[in-house]
Amino acid sequence: MVSTTKPSPFAPTVYAKLPPLEGVRFATAEAGIKYQNRTDLLLAVMDEGTVAAGVLTQSKTCSAPVLQCRASLAAQTGARAVVVNSGNANAFTGKRGKDAVDLTVDYALAATGSADRNGVYVASTGVIGEPLDASKFAGLLTGMANSAVADGFAAAARAIMTTDTYPKLATRTADVGGVTVTLNGFCKGAGMIAPDMATMLCFMFTDACVDQPVLQQLVSRHAETTFNCMTVDGDTSTSDTCLLFATGAAAKRGQTPVTDPADRRLAAFDAALHDLMRDLAIQVARDGEGLTKFVTFEVTGAESWRAGRAIALSCANSPILKTAIAGEDPNWGRVVMAVGKSGEAADRDKLSIWFGPHIVARNGERAAEHLEDTAADYMKNAEIVIRIDVGVGTSSATVWTCDLTHDYVSINADYRS
Amino acid sequence: MVSTTKPSPFAPTVYAKLPPLEGVRFATAEAGIKYQNRTDLLLAVMDEGTVAAGVLTQSKTCSAPVLQCRASLAAQTGARAVVVNSGNANAFTGKRGKDAVDLTVDYALAATGSADRNGVYVASTGVIGEPLDASKFAGLLTGMANSAVADGFAAAARAIMTTDTYPKLATRTADVGGVTVTLNGFCKGAGMIAPDMATMLCFMFTDACVDQPVLQQLVSRHAETTFNCMTVDGDTSTSDTCLLFATGAAAKRGQTPVTDPADRRLAAFDAALHDLMRDLAIQVARDGEGLTKFVTFEVTGAESWRAGRAIALSCANSPILKTAIAGEDPNWGRVVMAVGKSGEAADRDKLSIWFGPHIVARNGERAAEHLEDTAADYMKNAEIVIRIDVGVGTSSATVWTCDLTHDYVSINADYRS
Repeated sequence: MVSTTKPSPFAPTVYAKLPPLEGVRFATAEAGIKYQNRTDLLLAVMDEGTVAAGVLTQSKTCSAPVLQCRASLAAQTGARAVVVNSGNANAFTGKRGKDAVDLTVDYALAATGSADRNGVYVASTGVIGEPLDASKFAGLLTGMANSAVADGFAAAARAIMTTDTYPKLATRTADVGGVTVTLNGFCKGAGMIAPDMATMLCFMFTDACVDQPVLQQLVSRHAETTFNCMTVDGDTSTSDTCLLFATGAAAKRGQTPVTDPADRRLAAFDAALHDLMRDLAIQVARDGEGLTKFVTFEVTGAESWRAGRAIALSCANSPILKTAIAGEDPNWGRVVMAVGKSGEAADRDKLSIWFGPHIVARNGERAAEHLEDTAADYMKNAEIVIRIDVGVGTSSATVWTCDLTHDYVSINADYRS
Repeated sequence: MVSTTKPSPFAPTVYAKLPPLEGVRFATAEAGIKYQNRTDLLLAVMDEGTVAAGVLTQSKTCSAPVLQCRASLAAQTGARAVVVNSGNANAFTGKRGKDAVDLTVDYALAATGSADRNGVYVASTGVIGEPLDASKFAGLLTGMANSAVADGFAAAARAIMTTDTYPKLATRTADVGGVTVTLNGFCKGAGMIAPDMATMLCFMFTDACVDQPVLQQLVSRHAETTFNCMTVDGDTSTSDTCLLFATGAAAKRGQTPVTDPADRRLAAFDAALHDLMRDLAIQVARDGEGLTKFVTFEVTGAESWRAGRAIALSCANSPILKTAIAGEDPNWGRVVMAVGKSGEAADRDKLSIWFGPHIVARNGERAAEHLEDTAADYMKNAEIVIRIDVGVGTSSATVWTCDLTHDYVSINADYRS
C-alpha cells in the first residue's frame, strides 16, 4: 500500500544528518505487523536520569498507547525506553488494546533490565480497530536492546513511517551556559491524518540537562505554534503523540541543570527547540496526502494570536478553498468565505488579501490594481503564500497546509480496497 | 458553467407542485447578470399585512443583501417585496455593494408602489467579490410587478439556481383552528456551499395568520434541526438566507390570528413547517456537488441534542470519512476518529457503530459478528445510514450530507478556469 503512493513533490533530496547524542540508543526490527520487507518496530533506550515531556492527542477516543504515555508523563519517575510500532494503531481495540500495551511494557522492561512500568513510553500507528498482536515483539526487544546504537536516528525515522513518502528528521544545537547541547527529532505523518493510519508521532531527544517542569512548559508552548498550526485535512487522530526526552548527559560536560523557566541560559535552547518543532511540522505538511502545493496562510491584524490561528486554520481546512488552490485558481472569494465562517472577529470592510506579493483585495473589495492574470500566474507556483489582514487588531498567526487534490480522494477512497 | 454539471443521481423525477397561495405573486426575468438564456431575477410581491420571519448567515463577512434583510426583519414594518438575483452574490463588494442594494430597493418600491424601505427583502447568490450592476434591474422590476402571478413557484425556484442541478420545491398544509392553511417553500444550494457561489437561499410562504414573534420562534427553532443539520463540506456562505412570509390571507376564510406560541391550534402548523424545512434541507444535501451517495449520520446516546449534532457534523464534515464513503469502504475506524475529534463527550469503551442494519463495532471494539463483506456490500447502496451510539446519555441527533468525490474536486478546482 505504501509503495503505491507517489512521492511528495516536496520530498527532500538530502535528509538532515542527526549526530549521535549521549544517553540514547536505537534499534529497529521487522516484526511483520502489517508491512512486509521493511522495519516496523523501534526501540529507543535511554540512560538513567532521562526525563520526558510531551503533548498527546485531545481525541475523546484516544488509543491505548496514548493512555500509557499519559500515565508515564504524570508519574515522572524517569524515562528508560520508547517502543513504537507502525502498521497497527492499537486504537479502538477495547480491553485487548490495554493488554497489548501491558505486554509491550513487560517485554521492554525485561529487555532493558528495569522495573518501572512508567519508565516505558509506547506509541502505535497504523490501522484503527484491529487488535495488535504484541506477542510479535517478544523475541525481538531483548536483542534490540543489546544491539542498540547511538547513530540510529535515520533508521528510527524510517521504522515509524506509514503513508509518509519520506522520513522526517531535524537537528539543532544550542548553547546553554557555555556548553553546546544537541536537539534531534524525527516524526511521521502524511498530514495530520493519514488513511486508516493514526497519524502524527514525534520523538525528540536532547542531551541538555533541564528540569522536567521547565521542559514541559517549552514543549506545550511550542506545540501550539508548530504542530498545532499545521493541518492536512483537519482530521485529528486518535494517536497523536509528541515527546521530548532529555538525557541530561551535557551535565558531564559541565552544563549545570536549568531549573527555572526564567533562567536566561534557556534562551538559545528555547529558540532551537521551537525551530526544530517548526521544521518537523512543516515537513509533515509538505508530505500531505496527494498534495501538489505547499500552502502558508499568514493572518495579520487579528484580535489575538489565537483568533488569528483560528482564522488561518479555517482557511487551511476549507475544502472549497483547498480545491481552488489545487486548480491554480486565485479565488479570493473563497478566502473571504473561510474568514467569515471562522467566527473570529474580522472587519469585512477592512479585510485585505494578498496572493504572494500580489494584493487582490483591499478594505473589503477587489483591489483596483488586482489583475486576474498576474494572480493566476502566481498560483502556478508549487509554494503558495496567502496573507490576510483582518483589520481588527495587531496580532498575527501562521498556518501550514497543502492543497486538496484528486490524489487525496484516490488515496483515501481506495485505501482498503 | 452550470450546464457542465452532471445532474445529481438523486434529482427527483417529479417535482412537488406548489398551489397558488393568496397574498403573494411571482415574476421572473432574464437580467443577464452572468448567465445567458435563463432567468436570473425573481420578484415576489406580497399583499399588505404580510409579516416576515427568518434566519441569516452567521458569517462575519456577510453580504450587503444579508444586512438589508437583517434591518428589515428588525424593523418589522410589514413585508411587501422580495428581490432575488442569481449569478452574483454582491458579497465583499464594499460600499458599492450597499449602493447596489439601495438601488434595488428603490426600483422595488417604485415597481410595487410602496414607500417603506424595510418592506423590501433582497438576496443575491453567485460569484463573490464582483460588483453587482443593479441598474440591470431598472427596466425590469415594474413590468414584473405588473405581470406577477400566483402560480409562479416553479419558475421562481428555477430563477434562483446557481450550481444546483434541480429546483428544490416543497409544500404542506396544516389545520389551524378548523381552517386549512398552505405552506410553500423553495430553496437553492448545491451544498451548504457552492463554488464561487454563495449558497443557501430559502423562501417560504404561507397564508396562515400568525403573529410575527410566534413565526420567528418557529423558524429559528426549526432551522436548528433542519438546515443547520445539513452540510456538504462545512463551508458556511456569506449569503445564507432563510425567510418565511405569512400573508395572513387565511383570516378571510375565518382563521383567527395566532398570537401566543403556546396556542394549541399551532401544533399542526408547527409540525408542517418543520417538515417543509426538513424536506428542503434534505433536497439540498441530495444535490451536493459531485455526490454519488446521500449519507445520514444518526447519533444516539449523546449527552444532549447539541452534543449529538456536533458529533454527527464532525463525521459529516470529515474529508477522510467522506472519501471512504465515496470509495464504498465501510471504514469505521474513521468514524471513531471523527467522534473523537468532535470534542463532545463520548465513552470510547461504550461506543457502538452501525452501517445500515449491520453492527460493525460494539462497546469500543470491532463487533464479533462484523463481516467486512456484508458491510462492504451495504456501502454499495446510494443511500447510506451510519448510526453511532456514543454511550454517555439519552439524546440523539441526525445530520444529512453526501460523499466527497473526484467530481467535487473537479467542480471546485476547475470552476473559474
